[in-house]
Amino acid sequence: MTELHLFNSKTRQKEKFQPLVPSRVGMYVCGPTVYGEPHLGHARSTVSFDIVFRYLQYCGYKVRYVRNITDVGHLENDADEGEDKIAKKARLEALEPMEIVQQYTIEYHNRMRELNSLPPSIEPTASGHIIEQINIVKKILANGYAYEKNGSVYFDVLKYAKDFPYGELSGKKLEDMLEGTRDLDGQTEKNNNVDFALWKKAKPEHIMQWESPWSKGFPGWHLECTAMSTKYLGDRFDLHCGGMDLQFPHHEAEIAQNNGSCGHEPCNYWMHNNMLTINGQKMGKSLGNFITLRQLFSGDHELLQQAYHPGTVRFFMLQAHYRSTLDFSNEALQAAEKGLNRLMKAVELLSKMKPENENSRDFNFADFKSRCTSAMNDDFNTPILISQLFEGAKFIQNLNSGKAGMEKEEFENFKNFFEEMTFDVLGLIPIQNNTDTNDETVEGLMELIINLRLRAKQSKDFDTADAIRNQLTRMGIEIRDSKEGTTWDKNIPQQ
Amino acid sequence: MTELHLFNSKTRQKEKFQPLVPSRVGMYVCGPTVYGEPHLGHARSTVSFDIVFRYLQYCGYKVRYVRNITDVGHLENDADEGEDKIAKKARLEALEPMEIVQQYTIEYHNRMRELNSLPPSIEPTASGHIIEQINIVKKILANGYAYEKNGSVYFDVLKYAKDFPYGELSGKKLEDMLEGTRDLDGQTEKNNNVDFALWKKAKPEHIMQWESPWSKGFPGWHLECTAMSTKYLGDRFDLHCGGMDLQFPHHEAEIAQNNGSCGHEPCNYWMHNNMLTINGQKMGKSLGNFITLRQLFSGDHELLQQAYHPGTVRFFMLQAHYRSTLDFSNEALQAAEKGLNRLMKAVELLSKMKPENENSRDFNFADFKSRCTSAMNDDFNTPILISQLFEGAKFIQNLNSGKAGMEKEEFENFKNFFEEMTFDVLGLIPIQNNTDTNDETVEGLMELIINLRLRAKQSKDFDTADAIRNQLTRMGIEIRDSKEGTTWDKNIPQQ
Repeated sequence: MTELHLFNSKTRQKEKFQPLVPSRVGMYVCGPTVYGEPHLGHARSTVSFDIVFRYLQYCGYKVRYVRNITDVGHLENDADEGEDKIAKKARLEALEPMEIVQQYTIEYHNRMRELNSLPPSIEPTASGHIIEQINIVKKILANGYAYEKNGSVYFDVLKYAKDFPYGELSGKKLEDMLEGTRDLDGQTEKNNNVDFALWKKAKPEHIMQWESPWSKGFPGWHLECTAMSTKYLGDRFDLHCGGMDLQFPHHEAEIAQNNGSCGHEPCNYWMHNNMLTINGQKMGKSLGNFITLRQLFSGDHELLQQAYHPGTVRFFMLQAHYRSTLDFSNEALQAAEKGLNRLMKAVELLSKMKPENENSRDFNFADFKSRCTSAMNDDFNTPILISQLFEGAKFIQNLNSGKAGMEKEEFENFKNFFEEMTFDVLGLIPIQNNTDTNDETVEGLMELIINLRLRAKQSKDFDTADAIRNQLTRMGIEIRDSKEGTTWDKNIPQQ
Repeated sequence: MTELHLFNSKTRQKEKFQPLVPSRVGMYVCGPTVYGEPHLGHARSTVSFDIVFRYLQYCGYKVRYVRNITDVGHLENDADEGEDKIAKKARLEALEPMEIVQQYTIEYHNRMRELNSLPPSIEPTASGHIIEQINIVKKILANGYAYEKNGSVYFDVLKYAKDFPYGELSGKKLEDMLEGTRDLDGQTEKNNNVDFALWKKAKPEHIMQWESPWSKGFPGWHLECTAMSTKYLGDRFDLHCGGMDLQFPHHEAEIAQNNGSCGHEPCNYWMHNNMLTINGQKMGKSLGNFITLRQLFSGDHELLQQAYHPGTVRFFMLQAHYRSTLDFSNEALQAAEKGLNRLMKAVELLSKMKPENENSRDFNFADFKSRCTSAMNDDFNTPILISQLFEGAKFIQNLNSGKAGMEKEEFENFKNFFEEMTFDVLGLIPIQNNTDTNDETVEGLMELIINLRLRAKQSKDFDTADAIRNQLTRMGIEIRDSKEGTTWDKNIPQQ
């Protein structure tokens, strides 16, 4: 495809991407609720939409990318009753809720930086936008789509559904929802269980509460995203992204809040990343397969055979399309590690090559470029792009060994494009070890050792020459003799 | 001193530190206005109070350390008129103000992390606490210490000064201020030029504005710190810190706001770090000697002879007391680099030593420990602590060479304490190079090379043995033969 198309979750089809304002994109991504260590789920969502952000920029768009931090209002089980997730964690750890927020926001930022995900343009917090949220509640009340009950305000889904479709995004039918939800405990003050909270009156012991026209309380979880997307991107913007588990109720509620407050939907395109499994199972704390990113990067979890570099994890994720489920296993991650190393070796080779100006053979750069961008234009198909890069890597090897040829100018274009796709668009990072092969000292010492070995061979001291090779092998360093001389390579340690 | 004393800027004397609640400390530090690259001034303030945070924790206190981010309300020239610093930068760069905030907040966090300054427990933003700021304005108005004029609210300093002392912290006299300030342009709406803004009505084109009882507007710069310290630490807490340039008007206004809203001062102790100069001159954009931390760490500024590692910059700052002025120069930084390397070599030696259990000679650990903690108890005197650590480093050398002795148990205590002071309290970090001597591969290769050299010497092949030594010398690696075997060391490249 020569133009960018993306799968719009709302219409369930691939659509040509056309921003509201030419050459500019407003993009909103639902960020984390910061009450625990970032895990694989956070990584997948963030990396998926990092790719969207990067590729839109590669295409020349000026992108305003807003990703929120939920630091208040997200109750247990994503419900309208129960304890605030952050307040609960704060109670358990005897801290101020904002200390919990700070701790896990830093954790999230650190892990995402390690995954080489770019920070968003704006990163607003729910607690920092109480006024804006209260204003939206006022508008929805004024439009008649909400009601107050005992100091709390609820969105009136039945009334709303008379004027606007409800459930389109998630594909749920209101009738089914009404049948499926029954008031079992009789404790809710909502008119109907399908309604959701816009403002909740706080219990006196609740730590996080603010004054409002209805009560001292706090905003409902769904409201923050409407308030912050509207504030920073306008009440209609281009692209709203998030995990598939947020489609209902969270994103459905956002659509209702936008319609209910300003009469139209928030955005033109919805994108959702799919979920992940671990050895074929859903990840869950009760299943013992809940793996945080810290554990993944350090290897400190009983399911992990080794530590996995953030670069490996990123590459692994991008080898699947964001709308596919993704299964984590040691085997798959180890295979990704090998693949990434192979690709990075090709890039390194490329950066050092100075090819002769000869006729291009066996490789059509224009075709290659077109296959790469077509993959990305087809709903950000990173696995296809990566497979193309592996084709390119093969060609680089052939070019290096003289089996293929390329004109100088075309080579420069090829090199730039290959690096752009690898680093700018996919954001790949080489696996850095203490035993980095680029280390200058190691290079120097290896040169000395290779010379000593040569000297030993020349004086027929084969014992010494063999001892050198054996000792290097034990260290994971392989040396190869050829007519041109001796080269060496450091293997990435395998388990 | 066996108990912690600190210099209270308010009383201008050293006082014994006694927290309001035993074993807990509430500490507020004025953080950056995020509209430009963090520079040397940011580093000095942050590192100074990072030491306070670290040492209080070392003393066993549970510290809640709040440091704000100013993202709205800070007008040019710290005045009550003129453009908002962030809005101006946003206008110049054609961005949304919150994009500017995000960009420079990330810069600030990154540089401070590189300097090994710990993040605060809570990092609130001014724009995230508009409601809290409006509430304080209401209280001050109700108490009669403020007045509204055309939708803006000003603090009435003359009226306040009848009930409370004004100017105590900065040592300014109200009479002098009244004489010195004259309304030159006639454009101010304040009753008196010594008054300061609590709330400013926004011009329609102003991007950052919120509804309030008085106007759509934004809070005055000084108000945010009162709102956020009160919210997270209570309306009376232990310790308020900031740069000396903030004493007036910022901190003086905070005292007035606290007195004016709740009848007492915000905190028991005020601490201020002194300013810095560059080659004896004040740092300023117009003087061409304005150096950002990014420039300092990369060497990319015409005044810099080289790049300086963040660890060097930190060490350099701590070699001066936080209340002294500090002069930056290449010579001083290079000397700090050497000093830090010397100290770090001693620490490394210490970690590898396994001393025999012999009588302690020439060193009294209890005395040493007492001299170190006395230095810190005496208003966080890091230069004295560092000079003590250098004394300790000499002893470590003597211990290593057998010129001194120590009992095993005392050695363990000494080692733990030395590391605690170096890493936990001072937060020092070794200068990491690509040519890190800890690199496992380098260690392995050097072992191989030393064995090859030994083998050559044993077979009387002195040509090879010399060639090895010469090649290593060219690489900056020094080898030393002794009875116990051959050791080696990598010199840190000097300019």
